[in-house]
Amino acid sequence: MTREALVAEIKRKKSFLCVGLDTDITKIPEHLLEKEDPIFEFNKAIIDATQEYCVAYKPNLAFYESQGAKGWQSLQKTIDYIPDNIFTIADAKRGDIGNTSKMYAKTFFENMSFDSVTVAPYMGEDSITPFLSFENKWVIVLALTSNAGAKDFQFTVSEEKHLFEKVMHKTQEWCSPDQLMFVVGATRGSDIDIARQAAPQNFFLVPGVGKQGGSLEDVVNYGMIDDCGLLVNSSRGIIYASSDENFASMASTKAKELQQQMAEQLIKHGIVR
Amino acid sequence: MTREALVAEIKRKKSFLCVGLDTDITKIPEHLLEKEDPIFEFNKAIIDATQEYCVAYKPNLAFYESQGAKGWQSLQKTIDYIPDNIFTIADAKRGDIGNTSKMYAKTFFENMSFDSVTVAPYMGEDSITPFLSFENKWVIVLALTSNAGAKDFQFTVSEEKHLFEKVMHKTQEWCSPDQLMFVVGATRGSDIDIARQAAPQNFFLVPGVGKQGGSLEDVVNYGMIDDCGLLVNSSRGIIYASSDENFASMASTKAKELQQQMAEQLIKHGIVR
Repeated sequence: MTREALVAEIKRKKSFLCVGLDTDITKIPEHLLEKEDPIFEFNKAIIDATQEYCVAYKPNLAFYESQGAKGWQSLQKTIDYIPDNIFTIADAKRGDIGNTSKMYAKTFFENMSFDSVTVAPYMGEDSITPFLSFENKWVIVLALTSNAGAKDFQFTVSEEKHLFEKVMHKTQEWCSPDQLMFVVGATRGSDIDIARQAAPQNFFLVPGVGKQGGSLEDVVNYGMIDDCGLLVNSSRGIIYASSDENFASMASTKAKELQQQMAEQLIKHGIVR
Repeated sequence: MTREALVAEIKRKKSFLCVGLDTDITKIPEHLLEKEDPIFEFNKAIIDATQEYCVAYKPNLAFYESQGAKGWQSLQKTIDYIPDNIFTIADAKRGDIGNTSKMYAKTFFENMSFDSVTVAPYMGEDSITPFLSFENKWVIVLALTSNAGAKDFQFTVSEEKHLFEKVMHKTQEWCSPDQLMFVVGATRGSDIDIARQAAPQNFFLVPGVGKQGGSLEDVVNYGMIDDCGLLVNSSRGIIYASSDENFASMASTKAKELQQQMAEQLIKHGIVR
């Protein structure tokens, strides 16, 4: 998907919501467990219920891999089911030497038709650039994550820059902002500010709003740019809003709530009317 | 597998060779492509031909994922086929927030019975520690990799330490040396020296010997400790030694050559007689 197409969707839906499909077989409503592919049935219902309010879906690979070969089938069916106008993110956090990264890129971009993959930067340039040779596909590099462990290495200071800033500066030398996003956690507004200064033109994929404690307003105030430049993810708060038979309608309600908050922000910042 | 069991195998076989099962469907001999599961058939033949000379097998997940659900079945069959006395490494380079890392750990340790998983350190403590709550299972943390991109972030200097040294120091605070190994590339002897000083007691998984240019002698001189403390990986040099019907016997020959060089080193350093 091109940046123009993504931004057009954001404006049309007045939303920059990404729904995280962290579908855990132990957490989905009991009545689905009788189905042949409970994970896909759950995702299908969630997609039907939320697609009006979101512009992206992000399955986390760990949840599918935990079901082995069957999980990969559920994932493939899920990605095939997501409408083409919605941006898809393989939250895989891969990264390996050049040839191997290329293989991961083929898997997610060609075999599975994802629009983007999350990538860990530790192994440097040749672990990231193989993801760039696919037209209209994106690499989403971990910069500042929202977990407690982010402090261990990402804030290491060298030459007056944090490691996450260095990651952002370096990767921009390799990738155009039309192919490169960053994961930037929503835990502190001041950090989003630093990240935005390090990458003024790139989209940020922002986890950590809601259950993990970040505020949407901070994210927008520090992170929003002219064409929005933000995808804000919510997983558990939407997909597990209810564990009963009404899970899909509750997911819809929660997604709509977030979409409405986002619409307000998009209007406030003059991106839509 | 315990450290004692691994070291006993190293002494018994006079080898610290790890064979990388980077099995690429486009590179395996043509006559195998008629089989129902060519990847497994290839691995089975390689395992039969090399198990006498190696103490570990390391499938790289990218190669299996590229075949989708079928690839996961090939991987499961491969891991089931490897004899219990041989250490197994899921070269997955995973790493995510706590709950998600736990899911990856369950996948590789419980569902698939691997002895160890490679993990990327960028996300810090809670991305690594979930792998530690499984008895006799190991986490292998990327410290200094053997690819060109290693220079981009791993050598970032802060408080007079490289990032890879900081990674090694920090992770040792969280994990006992009986559960924690490090990936340390074989590209320069002086770097292996620095890494060994940072982690005097841990096993190193060393890629980059052979095709990637590192020397076994350097690795041993700078990295070997009392109970060996080394697993040296070779992938392409062994498994693609020939692309003909004789691939398995050629793999055996190459593995034996490396084993004999390793035996010499183990004798020279007084670890075996």
